[in-house]
Amino acid sequence: MPKVDLSAIEETNRTGYPSPYDADVAGRWYRRLAPATGLTDFGASLVRLEPGAWSSQRHWHEGEDELMAMIEGEAVLVEDRGRTLLKPGDVVAWPKSVADGHHLINESAADCRFLVVGSKPAGQDCHYPDIDLIADGPTDDYLHKDRTPY
Amino acid sequence: MPKVDLSAIEETNRTGYPSPYDADVAGRWYRRLAPATGLTDFGASLVRLEPGAWSSQRHWHEGEDELMAMIEGEAVLVEDRGRTLLKPGDVVAWPKSVADGHHLINESAADCRFLVVGSKPAGQDCHYPDIDLIADGPTDDYLHKDRTPY
Repeated sequence: MPKVDLSAIEETNRTGYPSPYDADVAGRWYRRLAPATGLTDFGASLVRLEPGAWSSQRHWHEGEDELMAMIEGEAVLVEDRGRTLLKPGDVVAWPKSVADGHHLINESAADCRFLVVGSKPAGQDCHYPDIDLIADGPTDDYLHKDRTPY
Repeated sequence: MPKVDLSAIEETNRTGYPSPYDADVAGRWYRRLAPATGLTDFGASLVRLEPGAWSSQRHWHEGEDELMAMIEGEAVLVEDRGRTLLKPGDVVAWPKSVADGHHLINESAADCRFLVVGSKPAGQDCHYPDIDLIADGPTDDYLHKDRTPY
């Protein structure tokens, strides 16, 4: 297909977050675009947040750049730097290793949709400043901050 | 800034295309997002096409993946596979080395805006099937198809 047939790509709300951190992203629905389209140099997902849903737990990556663009609806970006309302056409870039956790919360009454792009997994940790969680770089496993398993 | 301050990034219609191939992209205005935001793993631009403008000459990359998402307005995707109207929320992926040239033409009466993401330059050629042009991988110079300079 010249245009990506989004209806042919599974929309899922799966998460590897251990309980209770999974509940916040139950209304995050995403389609992984790269495996479905043959892209291998970077990852990309089209994400739909239901009202109240979080895009993720607040996090930052040691080794991966991230970029998002809002396509439809609104969400609030939450960082140490503050809260920012994102509307269609707004773009946010998170260069790797900037130690300011981020996530989006849909505080509106309607779904929002955005594209997010990220580097290929770099084998470096992902940090979750608000909760007892770290994603181990080499294994991508979720661990307690003392690096014991859940 | 948590959100990218687009007004602080130069919007340009510069092109390295030799004449007369530059004329088709005179109404293509873009902001390069990666250098302005510190991203280094991939490139990204926010592009605005005026009515009649082309996103590029029709091309395909030997060594670079590309992905775009329409944010506002409409454009027609042109490939060997056919013509496809793109509207907000539509996504197109072009895996590297698929030898089907692509570009977008804004055939509407209003500007359109889209995000496009691409791999870091891979040092491999970019091919232009419709015209006497090739972008040399190692140098990124535009050459005649017989590889003589313009």
